[in-house]
Amino acid sequence: MSAINRQIRLTARPVGEVEPEDWEHVAEPAQEPGEGQFAGRTRFISLDPAMRGWLDDRPSYLPPVGIGEVMRAGSVIEVTASNHPGFHPGDHVVGTFGVQEHVVSDGKGAMKIDTSLAPPSTFLGALGMPGMTAYFGLLDVGALREGETVVVSGAAGAVGTMAGQIAKVKGCRVVGIAGGPEKCALLTDELGFDAAVDYRAGGVKRALREQTPDGIDVYFDNVGGEILDAALTRLAMHARVVICGAISQYNNATPFQGPSNYISLLVRRARMEGFVVFDYAKRYAEAAQEIAGWIGAGRIKVKEHLVKGTVDDFPETLQMLFRGDNIGKLVLELA
Amino acid sequence: MSAINRQIRLTARPVGEVEPEDWEHVAEPAQEPGEGQFAGRTRFISLDPAMRGWLDDRPSYLPPVGIGEVMRAGSVIEVTASNHPGFHPGDHVVGTFGVQEHVVSDGKGAMKIDTSLAPPSTFLGALGMPGMTAYFGLLDVGALREGETVVVSGAAGAVGTMAGQIAKVKGCRVVGIAGGPEKCALLTDELGFDAAVDYRAGGVKRALREQTPDGIDVYFDNVGGEILDAALTRLAMHARVVICGAISQYNNATPFQGPSNYISLLVRRARMEGFVVFDYAKRYAEAAQEIAGWIGAGRIKVKEHLVKGTVDDFPETLQMLFRGDNIGKLVLELA
Repeated sequence: MSAINRQIRLTARPVGEVEPEDWEHVAEPAQEPGEGQFAGRTRFISLDPAMRGWLDDRPSYLPPVGIGEVMRAGSVIEVTASNHPGFHPGDHVVGTFGVQEHVVSDGKGAMKIDTSLAPPSTFLGALGMPGMTAYFGLLDVGALREGETVVVSGAAGAVGTMAGQIAKVKGCRVVGIAGGPEKCALLTDELGFDAAVDYRAGGVKRALREQTPDGIDVYFDNVGGEILDAALTRLAMHARVVICGAISQYNNATPFQGPSNYISLLVRRARMEGFVVFDYAKRYAEAAQEIAGWIGAGRIKVKEHLVKGTVDDFPETLQMLFRGDNIGKLVLELA
Repeated sequence: MSAINRQIRLTARPVGEVEPEDWEHVAEPAQEPGEGQFAGRTRFISLDPAMRGWLDDRPSYLPPVGIGEVMRAGSVIEVTASNHPGFHPGDHVVGTFGVQEHVVSDGKGAMKIDTSLAPPSTFLGALGMPGMTAYFGLLDVGALREGETVVVSGAAGAVGTMAGQIAKVKGCRVVGIAGGPEKCALLTDELGFDAAVDYRAGGVKRALREQTPDGIDVYFDNVGGEILDAALTRLAMHARVVICGAISQYNNATPFQGPSNYISLLVRRARMEGFVVFDYAKRYAEAAQEIAGWIGAGRIKVKEHLVKGTVDDFPETLQMLFRGDNIGKLVLELA
């Protein structure tokens, strides 16, 4: 008798916030691996702000998740059976395997990970997409230089904790924007940020003015909305605004709030640039090696927020992201 | 008895649209040139959308015009008397001499022009700041390449007519956005644009979709607002959005309308960049020479909109810009 594969499928396109009714909890027999395939059991599921965008039926960098399809998600699985020469039982493998307990894969887009280097969940965070996103967003898109002032929004999140710490490694003054005193204390006391701004306390514009006396050279934006607008008032000459995400806007049923201060780009001869980390796939290994080195040397601390549960806990765990309940990389760990 | 120097001075900071009461019409005795100075009579006064920004008391690339000061403006004067070795009676000189009939200058920031090359007013347009702005904005900031699709807003204006024609010289597909059928006909029938979109007819988004089947590689924005937002929906991969101005927003008493579709920058791996033409001052001569060559070869047509009058007509003439009444470079020609 085959195992049961519990899955979360999309049943309706949410308008505004994602509701429990937008998901279907399905139980299917787990499949056996065919020729050239392997099967695995899901251990860790990544939760990412970008997931909200994947639910909307509009042109983006990936096609939307189809109605009735298993929800797209990055995850780490443990191989249980294999007809594939590159993957063996017991291997841990990272890939976009979806929100389900059992996976069958032909290995495309899958990567075996070395769990002696770091715990498996870290390959979804610091050594995974969020780490790559922070690395290439700051260093390539942001063209960060030593001694510059860097401001990171969503600073206590998966990408933000990495972006701020990488900027510190690169010798910058780093100011993080996060929600609430607990996150702000984490940034300055544990992660080495030079200052933190609590947007929930209000007065972000004034706080940024105080904390960036020479202006902002690189603003790494994960949130959009009013915080982006506040940061635009502080740009230094030739500043770079890196558009990584806009989590404050993803649940809008109305259009995004556009940055009303965008004309600062003209006054400050600055640029605002977006990117998608997948474009850097050929350089992931190089980046992961460098980040692993910084982690090993204690220069970067890995922050993960593990929620233990089953795939049925996925919808509620996803909401944590949009409420800002997580600190560091949010991961659903399957029991 | 010395001549009378009529001047337009700023008396109040406008909120929203500039009102006649914001200006003072002053008559003073014209000054004599001192040691190392020359005096001149104003012949042509430039009217520029950027003037609106100079009236606001907020940080920008130039200090605001002070209350009680002569309004800042570029102009061409004819030298009437000189104690300066570089300038002689009869010379035509371009500079930021302000809205006044008589000028005394020490020559700083002033440049003698060769009226055998082009009529004096052209040094305020195609061979002046608007020409420089189009040239460096497209070629440097926009990093234009042959064969790309270029969209220009405010296309029938001083900068827009030049930007579109320079893009044609560079072998691009060029779509202009302008207000009304007359301007649109000018773009396609006279200036060689491949297509024109009449924003007053509505449906800009759809029209852009039709006219840019491969998306927009370079969007040269003079207007901001809804047109910028529409253009953002059509960006090609790695597109460049050049922020040159935002005339649709300058008279807002409320904050600028931010581009709600800015997240296209992420999806399309695109950048939005602002610039100020003054930064290219060292390369003006090079650019003017190349533009003059294109004009001479008939590849670029100079469009100027001359209003004949006195400095007292400045306030009303300025309004023409914001109503979109002008075609090409708007200049006040003093009788």
